[in-house]
Amino acid sequence: MRAMPVEFWFEFASTYSYPAAMRVEGLAAQAGAKLQWCPFLLGPIFREQGWDNSPFNIYPAKGRYMWRDLERICARMGIPFHKPTVFPRNGLLAARIACQFAEAEWIGAFVRGVYTANFATDQDISDPAILEPIIERFGERATTVIERAESSEAKARLREQTELATHFGIFGAPSVRVGDELFWGNDRLEDALAWYKRGADHPA
Amino acid sequence: MRAMPVEFWFEFASTYSYPAAMRVEGLAAQAGAKLQWCPFLLGPIFREQGWDNSPFNIYPAKGRYMWRDLERICARMGIPFHKPTVFPRNGLLAARIACQFAEAEWIGAFVRGVYTANFATDQDISDPAILEPIIERFGERATTVIERAESSEAKARLREQTELATHFGIFGAPSVRVGDELFWGNDRLEDALAWYKRGADHPA
Repeated sequence: MRAMPVEFWFEFASTYSYPAAMRVEGLAAQAGAKLQWCPFLLGPIFREQGWDNSPFNIYPAKGRYMWRDLERICARMGIPFHKPTVFPRNGLLAARIACQFAEAEWIGAFVRGVYTANFATDQDISDPAILEPIIERFGERATTVIERAESSEAKARLREQTELATHFGIFGAPSVRVGDELFWGNDRLEDALAWYKRGADHPA
Repeated sequence: MRAMPVEFWFEFASTYSYPAAMRVEGLAAQAGAKLQWCPFLLGPIFREQGWDNSPFNIYPAKGRYMWRDLERICARMGIPFHKPTVFPRNGLLAARIACQFAEAEWIGAFVRGVYTANFATDQDISDPAILEPIIERFGERATTVIERAESSEAKARLREQTELATHFGIFGAPSVRVGDELFWGNDRLEDALAWYKRGADHPA
């Protein structure tokens, strides 16, 4: 098997990232792939496209469709879903934590915990008080984790990761990179892992 | 089985409508559904969203991704693909024909012929000389068909159909309507027909 990881690029406010984030670790394990969690911010990328809000808010027909589509997807996949009363929620602190601790053993469970708070239990994920119990599930001291995530080093790391996303041609979330190949959307997760497996079976 | 048709809403310039249009008749037949071909124009819908061009041209990262994604999809599905040298192509005349003759026996084959011209053999589908041989394959006189498609009645019909698309909350192509349920994208075709089958198996 080749060492190339499967990179999962996500933003905590992103709706379609929710079912993808809930599924990606299992799908990567099935494919025998090493998964790399790559949080980034959509805000700066959207601003470059002239949007100061989610396109789902700017274009109401698209937004209405997305909420119904997401509800159907989650129902079909058995993923709990409650339309958040605030959208998009500010995922900056959660993204800084995920970026700083991307290699921690608990990263996958943390990411799923934050998405569940946003899209299943309708909680304000920008509030440290919401994130703290999620972090402490893993035996970490929440205050220490949050302090490190708010260091200037951690802030710079997330900024760089967002710049890297743009550099890689990423324009939305979730996105999966397999080598130079980009896949966008929850509905391309399986395609991305099939692409990985084809590469792993027939290395260049 | 209930009489509710599966409506396939498409625009001849739309890239993801291409693989969907090539597949939808077979998938509908497998599901036992009556298929209704609903051509419409994306131009007026995009203009309402403030776009004077395809969003794939306005947002280059999204456009680059789409062409690569479409190439992968067509390769996987065994659908011939050649990136058109002009995009988007003007599908107005073809859409008027498809709208006026939506109930003709040859409608499905005509639609596939036009998409193939645009996305596989890179031809200018706004040119009647390109459309004529496609029409004449079905034993129709092309000049008669085109004349009828350019009547004020046919023009009004396509305008009304585009207004109906907006009314139904359609904002992109391809879209499939099954009753009041909307599905957007080539990657939702199978979901739309599964939705139809669930309704047909358990009528309300």
